[in-house]
Order: sequence, then structure tokens, then C-alpha cells
Amino acid sequence: MVGEFDVIKKFFSKTSGNQLHADKSAGVMLGVADDCAIFQPSPAHQIATSMDLLLEGRHFFADVDPYSLGHKTLAVNLSDLSAMGAKPIGCLLGLALPSLHTEWLAAFSQGFYDLSERYACPLIGGDTTRSAQGIALSVTVFGEVQKPYLQRSMAQIGDDIWLSGELGAAHIALQLLLKQQAGESLGAEEQDLLEQTRVALEKPIPRVELGQALHQIAHAMLDISDGLMQDLRHILEQSQVAAVLEEAKLPVSPALHGLPSSIVRKAVLGGGDVYELCFTASPSQRERLRQLSAELSIPLTRIGTIRARQTDQTDVQVLDRFAQAIEVFYSGFDHFS
Amino acid sequence: MVGEFDVIKKFFSKTSGNQLHADKSAGVMLGVADDCAIFQPSPAHQIATSMDLLLEGRHFFADVDPYSLGHKTLAVNLSDLSAMGAKPIGCLLGLALPSLHTEWLAAFSQGFYDLSERYACPLIGGDTTRSAQGIALSVTVFGEVQKPYLQRSMAQIGDDIWLSGELGAAHIALQLLLKQQAGESLGAEEQDLLEQTRVALEKPIPRVELGQALHQIAHAMLDISDGLMQDLRHILEQSQVAAVLEEAKLPVSPALHGLPSSIVRKAVLGGGDVYELCFTASPSQRERLRQLSAELSIPLTRIGTIRARQTDQTDVQVLDRFAQAIEVFYSGFDHFS
Repeated sequence: MVGEFDVIKKFFSKTSGNQLHADKSAGVMLGVADDCAIFQPSPAHQIATSMDLLLEGRHFFADVDPYSLGHKTLAVNLSDLSAMGAKPIGCLLGLALPSLHTEWLAAFSQGFYDLSERYACPLIGGDTTRSAQGIALSVTVFGEVQKPYLQRSMAQIGDDIWLSGELGAAHIALQLLLKQQAGESLGAEEQDLLEQTRVALEKPIPRVELGQALHQIAHAMLDISDGLMQDLRHILEQSQVAAVLEEAKLPVSPALHGLPSSIVRKAVLGGGDVYELCFTASPSQRERLRQLSAELSIPLTRIGTIRARQTDQTDVQVLDRFAQAIEVFYSGFDHFS
Repeated sequence: MVGEFDVIKKFFSKTSGNQLHADKSAGVMLGVADDCAIFQPSPAHQIATSMDLLLEGRHFFADVDPYSLGHKTLAVNLSDLSAMGAKPIGCLLGLALPSLHTEWLAAFSQGFYDLSERYACPLIGGDTTRSAQGIALSVTVFGEVQKPYLQRSMAQIGDDIWLSGELGAAHIALQLLLKQQAGESLGAEEQDLLEQTRVALEKPIPRVELGQALHQIAHAMLDISDGLMQDLRHILEQSQVAAVLEEAKLPVSPALHGLPSSIVRKAVLGGGDVYELCFTASPSQRERLRQLSAELSIPLTRIGTIRARQTDQTDVQVLDRFAQAIEVFYSGFDHFS
């Protein structure tokens, strides 16, 4: 089984950031292994850029609400910019549709534009085409970012690990929608649960202001779109450190209260499609982060600690409320598994 | 019937370049109606960017040679940069595949990288995912561009109309491949013709150096990927002018010699997938352009003249060798027609 990241590494990693920086007048700074690539048109200006490709049947269902789809298409890319602490400049949209439906396009573009205006990220170009089958979407965003960059490789031993927002709702909504797509009908409680959780899946809020505010505070940061456990591992690998998380501190979506703990645990640790920021920061920043959380009205929760690597341990330990390590098998969303 | 450009205009043109320029610190300069969008991170630096979405069954056949596909995926975007006179900085690749084939990926990435290295346009990021069906490709390129920009709206009455390279081969190759795909077998002459023309379709050479060299010479420029007649009309509409072309001057690919004139005419005037530059320039630049053609070893042919608009005429007149206007119905490649 070859995973998404192995494919990238094997075939598309010929050019590393450092190598390019040395011989490019425009200065490419970061390569394929971070939320964004960065290039530097002048010493004082850095441009972060990110691209996502979203396909019907893979990333969304054919019957998804088009307004929400327009919103999410841009939101997932703004989330990548946020993880670099970048300020949006603009975006490109590639849109392939099997046929033209005016109402669908009107709702989709409205969802896209509403988010684009909210975060001052204007649509400046793109491409439209007819697809043989199914909808394909591609968004590229650009943002301005300041040095030093917020990279995944900068986590320090002793750092606190923080998380914005809440966990678990998107995963539960996805499971319920998959059940519906398989032709099963949902009970009344499940319908209620779907109504409470689907907004997290279909209309995630990118943490644009928070990402910029954290630029001077955090050491390493990313969004956990592939799930907390899988994405945290990118920080740990690139920073050559380990992490201990406390399960009792993880901010679980209130919609999940009352569900069996095994389901909650899986949703919280492994569930993907989460556009929250996970970052590490010095313990000296705790008060500043509490103030920031209050200012922006965004929950910020301290969920663990960065530790030194030990060869006989896994890189992430999750401790239950008795401080016992939980066996964790949830590897998140791997697009090629 | 709604065409590609109508879709863009109707749903995705809320933000115009001028409007954005006024209120964005990063300065978005051109909107969705040119080869590239441009943003300006600092007064001295302008970034041109372009995106293309390519789908199996629509833009290429499932059995296309993967090396050629990797080449063309980047080439079509470099061609858009060239049409703005931009110098490549880097690119992003989105790649959705129904399954992983190592040999296919190795050849595809080699084709992509060979062109990327040739034009110093390193791959700096992207996204990979599994598709439910068929290959989807998305490329975004960035380049540096100098003011004043080469825009489609700058053609002047009295300008010569120039074209790089030759016309017709890609269209003929496509027709022959479509015939094969339909299950018909090709005769020996057709096989020969396919061998001579398919390189134009599958491995087009973007005019990167030429585009940069023309920056100080041309008034209006674009690539004619949707066909000469259709794309020239974009210059005419945006510049509020008309054009007269002389059919006898059009540079026909030598591979087409001997074909019926009606087939040649259709291929030359209407055939898409042509990554040549069409531009207008003052007659005072003729000698300079002949020198440039010799220096770069790229044919540059003067094919017509920009005229004032008259309400009782079509915007493009094509004159045959008796100076009689040809009726032209070839509207080029409209992705939604």
C-alpha cells in the first residue's frame, strides 16, 4: 500500500527548498512538504501558495448543497494559508462540470464569493471546462507571509501543544452521510446528530485571523485536515521530536456528548476534514494565548507537550485519564489507502 | 448553448482588476479575462499566475503517452505565462489518479520535470488524491512580469498581426486520434500523417523566451490554445478593433501539404491546442522582429493588420489570395459547446 505522501516523495520531490533558494532569482523557499509553498519576489516580500484538488465521490457527495461546496472549496485552501500565518491576497478557481445548471452555479459561486469577501481573498482567475463525469474543483490561493516562516520543523522540546476549536463533529457527520449514501435510513437521534454535526463537515471556518496572530507566537503549526494524529506526526517527524497528548484535555464537540467513548475517541483522534490549527508554543506564551482566544472568540486548548524522541516509543503517546497510554490505530485520511 | 466564457462572466466576474487594485494592499492587477492574473506584492514586483484543469476524456485520451502528458500539462500553463511576457518562477501540480502505477508515474513526472528544468520553473507544491474515475490534472504557474503589462486590450489600429510557429498540425493529429478512438483503423497515409503531426498535439513547445523578448515590442498578445480565430477575437473585443488576415500568409505546417484545402483551412483557422503566440506590433518593429526570429530560431510570420471597427462588418475578415473575404465559421474550441 502506497500512501499519498509516499507518492509525492517518490516522484515529485526533485526540487527542495534550499536547493532552489540558491539559484532562483525569485527565491523559492519551501518545497512540497508543508501546508504552503513559499516564493520570494523580493527580499521584503514572501508569497505563500497552496493548491487543493477536490473531486465528487471522493471529497464530497454529488448531492452536496452547492453553496456549502463553494464555501468549503475555498475554506480548505484558506486553512492552509492560515497554517502558515499568511494574509490572503487572492485565489484561482478551476471548475469542471459535467453540465451547466444555472441554479447550481449561482449557489456555488455565492458560497465561494461570500467566503472570499469575508477574508479579502478575491478570485482573480482560473479555468472552467466540461467534465466527462463528475465535478472536479481546483483552488489555488496566495497570501503574504512574514519571516520567520511558521514551519512544521520548528517545534521545540518542552513546547505546549495547542489546538483551536473542537474535534469530532466532521467525522460523525461523514459517517452518517456515508450510511445514508449506502441506502440506509437514519433514526431520529441520528438525524438530530447529523443536523448538529454537518456544518462542521460542510462549512468549516478557516482560522485566517488566528493564523496571522499566531505568526509571532507559535513555533510549529499546521491544520489538521487529515486528522489530529496523522497531521501532528508531520510536525513530530520534521522537528525530530515526540508528543504526549492528554485525552481528557481534547476539546470534543458538544454534539458528540453521550456517544460511546470508542466512537468519540476515533472521531477525535482520527477524524479528518478538520480545519483547525494545531500548533506548538513555549509555555511562556500561555497567558498571551488565553488573551488571544478571548479576543478572537476562538477556543484555544492546550492538549499536550512536545518531548524528546526515544527510540523505544511511538512518536505520539495519548494518555487516558489514568495516565495510561492508549493504543492508537487511527491514522487519519490517506487519499491513496 | 452557454459557452465557457459566458459561464465565467456570469458567475465569476464579481471582482474586476481595477476594483481590486484600489483596495488591496497586495494589489491585484488583472482579473479573470486574460491569460494570467497578476498581483503585485510590492510596487517593483508583479506576479503573473495561471491555472489549467485537464481531464481525461476531455483534454487527453486515457492511453496517452504519460511522458508527453507530463510535458503538456506544464507546457499549456507555461504558454499562458509566455503570453504575458512573464519569466517563470515556479508551479504547483494537482494530480488525481484512479490508481497508482509506478511506471506511469515515473514517465509522467519525468516529462513534467524535463520541461520544468528547461524553463527554470520548479515544482514547489501541490496535491495528490485518488479519483473515482479518470485522471484529473491541475497546474498553477507563477511568473515575474514587468510593467507595462502585455494585455489583450492594447492592440492599436494599424498594428501588424504576427504569429509564431506553424498552424494546423495539432488539429489534424486530434482528428486522426479521434478516428482511432472511434474504432476505425487508419490507412498507411493517415498513419504517416499522424506520426508527423502528433508531436504538435502532444508535446507543444511553450514560447517562453519569445514571450519575454516580445514584452517590449508587442502591443497585445495571447496564446491561441483555443484556435486562431477564436482567440484573436479576444484581442479584438478587448481592444475595440477589427482585423484583416491574409490566408496566403498563414504559416501552415509542412505536414499538411497535399491535404484538401478545405481541411487545411479548418485546421489552420479553427484548430485548437495551438501553443503559439499571436501578437500585434507597430509596423516600425518589423526589422526588430525579423532579427528576433533569427536569434531564437522561431518562425515569426506577419499574417494581417489591425483595423478600425465598422458596425457593418465582422470583427475578423480573412481574405483569400484573390483578396476576397472567406466565410469563416470556425469558432475554435469551446469547452462547453
